Amino acid sequence: MRGAVLYAPGDVRVEERDDPRVEKPTDALVKLSATCICGSDLWPYRGIEAVHGPAPMGHEYVGIVEEVGDEVRGVRPGQFVIGSFFASDNTCEICRAGYQSSCVQRELMGRLGAQAERLRVPLADGTLVATPEPPPWDLVPSLLTASDVLGTGWFAAVAAEVGPGKTVAVVGDGAVGLLGVLAAKHLGAERVIAMSRHKARQELAVQFGATDIVSERGDEGVAHVKELSGGLGAHSVIEAVGTQESMMQAIRAARPGGHVGFVGVAHGVELPGDELFFSAVHLHGGPAPVRRFLPELVDLIWSRQIDPGKVFDLELPLDRAAEGYRAMDERRAIKVLLRP
Amino acid sequence: MRGAVLYAPGDVRVEERDDPRVEKPTDALVKLSATCICGSDLWPYRGIEAVHGPAPMGHEYVGIVEEVGDEVRGVRPGQFVIGSFFASDNTCEICRAGYQSSCVQRELMGRLGAQAERLRVPLADGTLVATPEPPPWDLVPSLLTASDVLGTGWFAAVAAEVGPGKTVAVVGDGAVGLLGVLAAKHLGAERVIAMSRHKARQELAVQFGATDIVSERGDEGVAHVKELSGGLGAHSVIEAVGTQESMMQAIRAARPGGHVGFVGVAHGVELPGDELFFSAVHLHGGPAPVRRFLPELVDLIWSRQIDPGKVFDLELPLDRAAEGYRAMDERRAIKVLLRP
Repeated sequence: MRGAVLYAPGDVRVEERDDPRVEKPTDALVKLSATCICGSDLWPYRGIEAVHGPAPMGHEYVGIVEEVGDEVRGVRPGQFVIGSFFASDNTCEICRAGYQSSCVQRELMGRLGAQAERLRVPLADGTLVATPEPPPWDLVPSLLTASDVLGTGWFAAVAAEVGPGKTVAVVGDGAVGLLGVLAAKHLGAERVIAMSRHKARQELAVQFGATDIVSERGDEGVAHVKELSGGLGAHSVIEAVGTQESMMQAIRAARPGGHVGFVGVAHGVELPGDELFFSAVHLHGGPAPVRRFLPELVDLIWSRQIDPGKVFDLELPLDRAAEGYRAMDERRAIKVLLRP
Repeated sequence: MRGAVLYAPGDVRVEERDDPRVEKPTDALVKLSATCICGSDLWPYRGIEAVHGPAPMGHEYVGIVEEVGDEVRGVRPGQFVIGSFFASDNTCEICRAGYQSSCVQRELMGRLGAQAERLRVPLADGTLVATPEPPPWDLVPSLLTASDVLGTGWFAAVAAEVGPGKTVAVVGDGAVGLLGVLAAKHLGAERVIAMSRHKARQELAVQFGATDIVSERGDEGVAHVKELSGGLGAHSVIEAVGTQESMMQAIRAARPGGHVGFVGVAHGVELPGDELFFSAVHLHGGPAPVRRFLPELVDLIWSRQIDPGKVFDLELPLDRAAEGYRAMDERRAIKVLLRP
């Protein structure tokens, strides 16, 4: 089959890879309808994360089940399914507490490479959620977002304790940040402040429910958020970047007792303990337990209450993945959908 | 009046200080019945925090109101009162959210020096809580703990989301950690693991409700806590030290999705963002909003449901404060009560 492989920073190739197959009785084999490029794929693409030899890429996926292992009971061939970027059993104590991305049996889907024609999904019963029937074509992009970016933005909003009456600030205007705006709106936030300097992204933020745009960054951005929140700071802050600057901006934009939900994969971040202590904020984040939210998110998309697929502003055939990486790296595209 | 003053690291003197008086219409003047030495007083005493000239010391206090300003309505002369180490108005939006130690009008009581015969308390209506009547002599030490160490341990337990059915680990066996054990027990924890290497402190931890003692530190301590919690880590961890080692021990001892409540004043702590990210824990702490808990804690002490005063294992006249500092610095005493 065809699949994207990263050879070195900046060098992504789509080439023949071995066809995946059912290896364990708990596996499912999925023929992918769509996959995409994630902001986190850019860390190794940019050489900020080490690249170890040719590495299959991609961890976001939707498609049709082709085959299942002997022990799989929850999904069957022919069903359209969505899964998270971590396979999880969904039965262990950690999963039952809602932290499926830390499942005691978890497997990172990225290692298997979802930017491809087919994908082996371990722990299929725990990992995959099926739609009521194969979806109409136009719902596929939105369903694909549930695999990671929507679920991650949603988790960030929940981690930041977004709710009715609250002022929410969102640091980061990538797909996750923008879908954090959508989640905040859906969860009832009174005011949603999107922090963005890019016109197209500001517009999408407003479509998703942002009530205010703050284009300043750092201390100036923090001052502007405070100005919009009675001098106190936001009740909830979503952090969706993962740099030192973005984390400090998020912590400083929150009021004492406020909540910061951080989902940008941290790179080179060192949080000063004394500032964190005196900020009196709540901090929670990590790799989003997307599986916790999948049934609800699929339902919201299926019933067309939310339209997160709008984050895809470029669609390419899988074979042109390299072009997609370049477009995201240069911030010409918010998020790139790949059609296998 | 007599009061303790820190001149330089290791040099505490009790000497004549100006008598405090009502300066603002919202002030109260309190004749102190008891005060004490805090673990946090040891930071400047040890020279880890800078000492700027002769500084009045102490921020924990109980006593009888002698005089109030014209605008004070909530307390009156003759009442026995307890207040937090931060004066707060208890009416601003931050106070109403339960974060009185970040009140928009807050004043740090330590600057006023509570290791003394009398104390001016700003924002008296917001800050002070009166007992139903002057307390019997034997309740005074317990009521004094509510001013800081009990309230701080309690906040740590609440921040760590301690509750029924949970396994709680406590990092730090000073007065705050020990009272964190007491709080965890009272809040219904199923298992309370006290991390301590000191026999007397272990014994007090058990009296306060610890079910297990872990004497190892660092990685070994974390491994032991995991062994006691099904390999997963504690649901809730109370951090009551404030060093790099203790913070990392606390974060690593918590399970994914677990909660770390940290109240040790952070000194030289830098939290690695990537480890925090993948730990998937909740982190919340800071200067405890003791005022939030004061009414409940006073009630629990008054009705003799809890006996936190046991943390005082040395009692001295105020004039011998220097001896008390030495005993705490050398860990010969857990906590020292001073009688003005």
